[in-house]
Amino acid sequence: MQISKSDLFRLSAAQAAELMRQNRFSVQDYAQALLERVRLRDPQVRAWVYLDEKAVLDQAQQLDLLPVEKRGPLHGVAVGIKDVFLTKDMPTRYYSRLHADDGNAAADSAVVSILRSAGAIIFGKTATTEFASMTEGGPCTNPNNPKHTPGGSSSGSAAAVADYQVPLAIGTQTGGSTVRPGSFNGCYGFKPTWGTVSTEGVGRFSISADTAGFYARTVEDVEMLARLFRVDSLATTAPAPVEPLGIAGAKIAFIRTHVWPNAGPGTRAAWDLAHRLLQDQGAKIQDVELPDVFSQCTKWRETVVAQEARAAFLPKYRQDKSKIHADIVRLVEAEDLSGPEEVLEAYDGIARLRAEWDQIAGDYDIIITPSAVDEAPEGLEDTGIAVFCTMWTILHVPAMNVPGFKGKCGLPIGLMVVGSRYSDMDVLRAGKAIGAVFSRRQNRMEGREREASREELLA
Amino acid sequence: MQISKSDLFRLSAAQAAELMRQNRFSVQDYAQALLERVRLRDPQVRAWVYLDEKAVLDQAQQLDLLPVEKRGPLHGVAVGIKDVFLTKDMPTRYYSRLHADDGNAAADSAVVSILRSAGAIIFGKTATTEFASMTEGGPCTNPNNPKHTPGGSSSGSAAAVADYQVPLAIGTQTGGSTVRPGSFNGCYGFKPTWGTVSTEGVGRFSISADTAGFYARTVEDVEMLARLFRVDSLATTAPAPVEPLGIAGAKIAFIRTHVWPNAGPGTRAAWDLAHRLLQDQGAKIQDVELPDVFSQCTKWRETVVAQEARAAFLPKYRQDKSKIHADIVRLVEAEDLSGPEEVLEAYDGIARLRAEWDQIAGDYDIIITPSAVDEAPEGLEDTGIAVFCTMWTILHVPAMNVPGFKGKCGLPIGLMVVGSRYSDMDVLRAGKAIGAVFSRRQNRMEGREREASREELLA
Repeated sequence: MQISKSDLFRLSAAQAAELMRQNRFSVQDYAQALLERVRLRDPQVRAWVYLDEKAVLDQAQQLDLLPVEKRGPLHGVAVGIKDVFLTKDMPTRYYSRLHADDGNAAADSAVVSILRSAGAIIFGKTATTEFASMTEGGPCTNPNNPKHTPGGSSSGSAAAVADYQVPLAIGTQTGGSTVRPGSFNGCYGFKPTWGTVSTEGVGRFSISADTAGFYARTVEDVEMLARLFRVDSLATTAPAPVEPLGIAGAKIAFIRTHVWPNAGPGTRAAWDLAHRLLQDQGAKIQDVELPDVFSQCTKWRETVVAQEARAAFLPKYRQDKSKIHADIVRLVEAEDLSGPEEVLEAYDGIARLRAEWDQIAGDYDIIITPSAVDEAPEGLEDTGIAVFCTMWTILHVPAMNVPGFKGKCGLPIGLMVVGSRYSDMDVLRAGKAIGAVFSRRQNRMEGREREASREELLA
Repeated sequence: MQISKSDLFRLSAAQAAELMRQNRFSVQDYAQALLERVRLRDPQVRAWVYLDEKAVLDQAQQLDLLPVEKRGPLHGVAVGIKDVFLTKDMPTRYYSRLHADDGNAAADSAVVSILRSAGAIIFGKTATTEFASMTEGGPCTNPNNPKHTPGGSSSGSAAAVADYQVPLAIGTQTGGSTVRPGSFNGCYGFKPTWGTVSTEGVGRFSISADTAGFYARTVEDVEMLARLFRVDSLATTAPAPVEPLGIAGAKIAFIRTHVWPNAGPGTRAAWDLAHRLLQDQGAKIQDVELPDVFSQCTKWRETVVAQEARAAFLPKYRQDKSKIHADIVRLVEAEDLSGPEEVLEAYDGIARLRAEWDQIAGDYDIIITPSAVDEAPEGLEDTGIAVFCTMWTILHVPAMNVPGFKGKCGLPIGLMVVGSRYSDMDVLRAGKAIGAVFSRRQNRMEGREREASREELLA
């Protein structure tokens, strides 16, 4: 493989790690290439809320000096960190005026600490909506079209990865904050089983729903993070490395869920196309309808999240309510708060559904459901709605956006693979398999488009 | 009420707050009196791992300068903070060598932020066992007898309150870390319903079990914190202020639970005595046996906590495993880890028991169960066992140690009041009622003891 230094930014994390292991280039070369890409692209994308070039190069230099035997599994790989994870060498500001003057944390959040111990470059902090809880967008734009939202709340993490500014980034998901931006920007966005990755040092929104998430441009790279964080330690199956599942003969469930009426034309077209593509590959496809009780889940999740958010945001409210979003103020003040019976019905109802879902999921090799209502909407004010994601988040199950389609404005649309709790590695295998099918088609399409535009030029 | 400045340390939080509101003494007077008490007593008790006298007095001075209309509900009240809560003006070190050099946090943990906004003095950081997860004791001693453990992991918080060094302190409970030290030191120790108080900025051990807890010498003071943190916002009943429940005619359940064989002679004697005392007051007492399935809960909790602790401690392990306790290393390395079926059985089994317990609890006005196996054991190496507390913690229910008895070495023994989820204020009412009965008897006893010793002297 010949690769020029200026093209290093295109490498996947796994490729970059392997080539640095072979000493084909230094961590400093790699960091320089990424910074160059950032300089070129980020004035438009605005994925980063904190990025200190010198600090990045210092980390790279330190890593280059490290003796080979002390190098970690992510040696030299750059990772973007959503600005809700505490970092000891960068401020953490949650896109909140309340934290605008906060300095560096005394210690790293659990996720950042694990990345740092593995030899990753903690590249910078990425744009988030306020406390990762609001749909009101910030300055970050969609790298595919700066007039469109990158989605949220993990806006900058998804945008930076999709835009080749870093190969990996960390987000969070409480509703659809990892999967939706994955779909909107066109990269993999993976939310592991709740509880497998520590959220210590992450801004709290809803303790039962908050989950750390990973962004990458390949499933192999998602897997790299999944293994680093030991998401696989309770995996129902844990092949090493993850081999894509064979599609021929695979039992694939397509689950529209009760929120399907929200799906726009882009998602509907992707849905039908995925159906056909996988059928063509010999998959046994089944349209699965969930039992009625699952339609309660969206409302139950809202009750639980509202109750937990009241506790999470009380300190912010007491500190200075004039500096927090009016919707957060309303959450904290909520006089129309659900009573204990309703809250407990929601907690206990969801707990029953978790077990019930695991039973259902066990019947299929691959389970597909929509990631988002459509391609990223125009405008930066609103990051879009998470209605297709929220149920899976509160069910605590692994969920991954798999890119592969486009909407009417030409922006990416993905579909979500889900599984039972702790079947994270199976979800990666499934995502790898269908991702390959989707991208083969997309590559053919893009080939045709290139040809068509050349013909136009020649005409 | 006449009170000399040197005696201010004896006041409850509610008394001190009221008298400072009346300008009977300044916050600085109060802080000085507490510091004097600390100087006198803490060389023996060793409750504090961080206490900067000047910083305390600076806070007091600032509070004295605050215009009356800007004073908060806890204006001037001193609160001790377990050294697992992040503080922006003090280091947080978790009794861990890994964090020995950590500085101040960028921002306060949720609990400390709420206390600070309410005008409390953040007095200092109190002794904990390593990451609030180990039973190996630190230097902190039991204020009733320095040869005995104060219990753990909230060792310093319980000891400082019981020893009149501060009127209030904050602890945590993942097993029995709030209630047990309450029993061992002889003060109230209250663990609210899980999720009602944000644990953002608290060192993680087990996300499903970790709960912030409160220490005080009166139920009125516990209530002050419960209201500040809005634990009452989902209360099944929320009388304001909490009036002690009438004992005559009250339906009181005594629940030994399946771990009763662990009870030592001190706890058994307290149990029988409480039974008799409450019967004498006209209570309708019932010995309640829980359905067999509850005996699974202890084991299920262990499975869940072990699984979650693996995630929580992974960053510490990766950072430098030579600096963490061998038991934590074993937790992280656990090759004998439960499989996903076992972990899910535990999660889902506990979720079912939560609903089932709430049903049972609804039948009684007051529910009493043991706090600890006996009085605090001799020796500082081991903080004792939490077997009577763990089930209630993972059931997410409010639980409060009510002091009132003594063991054979003369050290305190309490009993625990529990309730259904969100019945926190009912638990406080119940605790106030039975606490009054227990302490009337103890005061009579102590009166007799004083008389007896005077007679001895005269003999």
